[in-house]
Amino acid sequence: MSKLAVIALGGNAIIRDDERGTIQEQNKNTTDTFEHLTYLIKKGYNLVISHGNGPQVGNILLRNDAGEEVYDIPQMPLDICVADSQGGIGYMLEKMLKNVLKEEGIEKEIVTIVTQVVVSKDDPAFNNYTKRVGKLYDKKRADELSTNKGWVFKKSPKRKDAWRRVVPSPKPIAIMNEKIIKDLVYSGVIVIAIGGGGVPVYYDDEGMLRGLEAVIDKDASSSLLASNIDSDEFYMLTDVPYVYKNFGTPKQEILEFLTKADIEKLIEEKAFGEGNMLPKIKSALRFVENGGSKSVITDASKLEDKKYGTRITLL
Amino acid sequence: MSKLAVIALGGNAIIRDDERGTIQEQNKNTTDTFEHLTYLIKKGYNLVISHGNGPQVGNILLRNDAGEEVYDIPQMPLDICVADSQGGIGYMLEKMLKNVLKEEGIEKEIVTIVTQVVVSKDDPAFNNYTKRVGKLYDKKRADELSTNKGWVFKKSPKRKDAWRRVVPSPKPIAIMNEKIIKDLVYSGVIVIAIGGGGVPVYYDDEGMLRGLEAVIDKDASSSLLASNIDSDEFYMLTDVPYVYKNFGTPKQEILEFLTKADIEKLIEEKAFGEGNMLPKIKSALRFVENGGSKSVITDASKLEDKKYGTRITLL
Repeated sequence: MSKLAVIALGGNAIIRDDERGTIQEQNKNTTDTFEHLTYLIKKGYNLVISHGNGPQVGNILLRNDAGEEVYDIPQMPLDICVADSQGGIGYMLEKMLKNVLKEEGIEKEIVTIVTQVVVSKDDPAFNNYTKRVGKLYDKKRADELSTNKGWVFKKSPKRKDAWRRVVPSPKPIAIMNEKIIKDLVYSGVIVIAIGGGGVPVYYDDEGMLRGLEAVIDKDASSSLLASNIDSDEFYMLTDVPYVYKNFGTPKQEILEFLTKADIEKLIEEKAFGEGNMLPKIKSALRFVENGGSKSVITDASKLEDKKYGTRITLL
Repeated sequence: MSKLAVIALGGNAIIRDDERGTIQEQNKNTTDTFEHLTYLIKKGYNLVISHGNGPQVGNILLRNDAGEEVYDIPQMPLDICVADSQGGIGYMLEKMLKNVLKEEGIEKEIVTIVTQVVVSKDDPAFNNYTKRVGKLYDKKRADELSTNKGWVFKKSPKRKDAWRRVVPSPKPIAIMNEKIIKDLVYSGVIVIAIGGGGVPVYYDDEGMLRGLEAVIDKDASSSLLASNIDSDEFYMLTDVPYVYKNFGTPKQEILEFLTKADIEKLIEEKAFGEGNMLPKIKSALRFVENGGSKSVITDASKLEDKKYGTRITLL
């Protein structure tokens, strides 16, 4: 039987840091990413593809803001904006992957599913906003938006005098439609799902589904989905070819293989960047703890080259 | 075996003409619509739900415009905007339907699929822009947008001195993922698909999929899908309880039953409104010509009351 892999595409698989995010840039980057991904398809893997939406949903939020200002159009809440981004990005990914596969002579059905992800309304994240969304602002504009919209801001860790909106990032506890996703993918369909970590929803006291002004970490959702559909492997594609110990310091060190014991030791030593790499490592670990055979963290462009990438296993 | 029905929700099933389109209004209208739709689910029908996106994609287009003006964010082309609207509306529909079914004690899986619809690049529609999108503008603003964006405008038939953007509306020739939609719906899943008539794409000379600045008529796409998945019935829910002969004139007349022969005669007599009702009648006719047993045009709120609605059959 074919192996199953869940692939979480990082933001830079679609929009690079130094780009404005035009559709031409997004089409080009996506095509580049998928040209590397065909390696797994040729090896016979079934695939679920998830993706980030940071720059896109940030732009959608700003357009909502500007649309109200200029045309008095009611703003949509963040859950709708995330769902919008799933539609737009999902369509673009599906189309570009279809074209890349065509170039390679591969016939595969690809389907994009708008995916809700359920969180708990008692998640401690609602008392501690941590997820950065949208563009960088200067202090003055951040203060204005904070006053006018009630948005919460935190200082950028990278750029002095730059501020970014933060929203809560609750833990995913259930993926809607996961059985459908599983059935489709085992039948050989490539499924694009849980874009942006999923549209955040919770069940209220009456058991009704409600949307949330939140963003769910896409690697956490992807790890949960990968476990729930019994994926063999789980890939997180990001902007570095390896996980490093003490990244960006003079003591930086490539980590090629990590076991659960290695990771626990390194977390204790605070060897991983809190903001970016630590959540990925934890998602990888959760996947192998839940029975997955292997998780890989690498750059999309290094996917087919065995000498790159960090492989995370239980033992 | 359960009967299958494709239901095309008109714009006013989600945003009414006199509303601003806040998320609260959209949630409320959608819930009202679905409370009537449960009638078919209780009768054991399997359902595909498609929907319009006129007001929503109009707002998305305006937000793109305002976002560029205020924040210098690159605008997305219309195909991406349609896909965005499929994500946002599809999520909202799925969530509200889930809640309505829960109130009724009905357990059903519901899935939303981002759907591309293929058109021919040689469609004559590309020489004749007919589909109205977005808000009404005064002449001055329409001229500005025409100069700045290259948008094409036509005068509103309803309001004097009001102008609206028009885009081409090519004929749908193929629905992507229709086999997946069919398999899902026959397994009892409610499928939300081809929102806004589908994301318009075509195959270029190299056989590559490309997006288009166009809007496909949702009733035409829904009719095609209904035929292709062997739906028994095809409902178009709109803002009138019946199709009328000579609507809005002193000679207005309710039409309860229409056969192919009736329709051909009435079209010859120019008895239907060109803009709104004629495309629905044609979509209904195409469905029964292709083997569907019955098409119904009515108001969502009249769905369960047998004394309302126009039934279209072949003979």
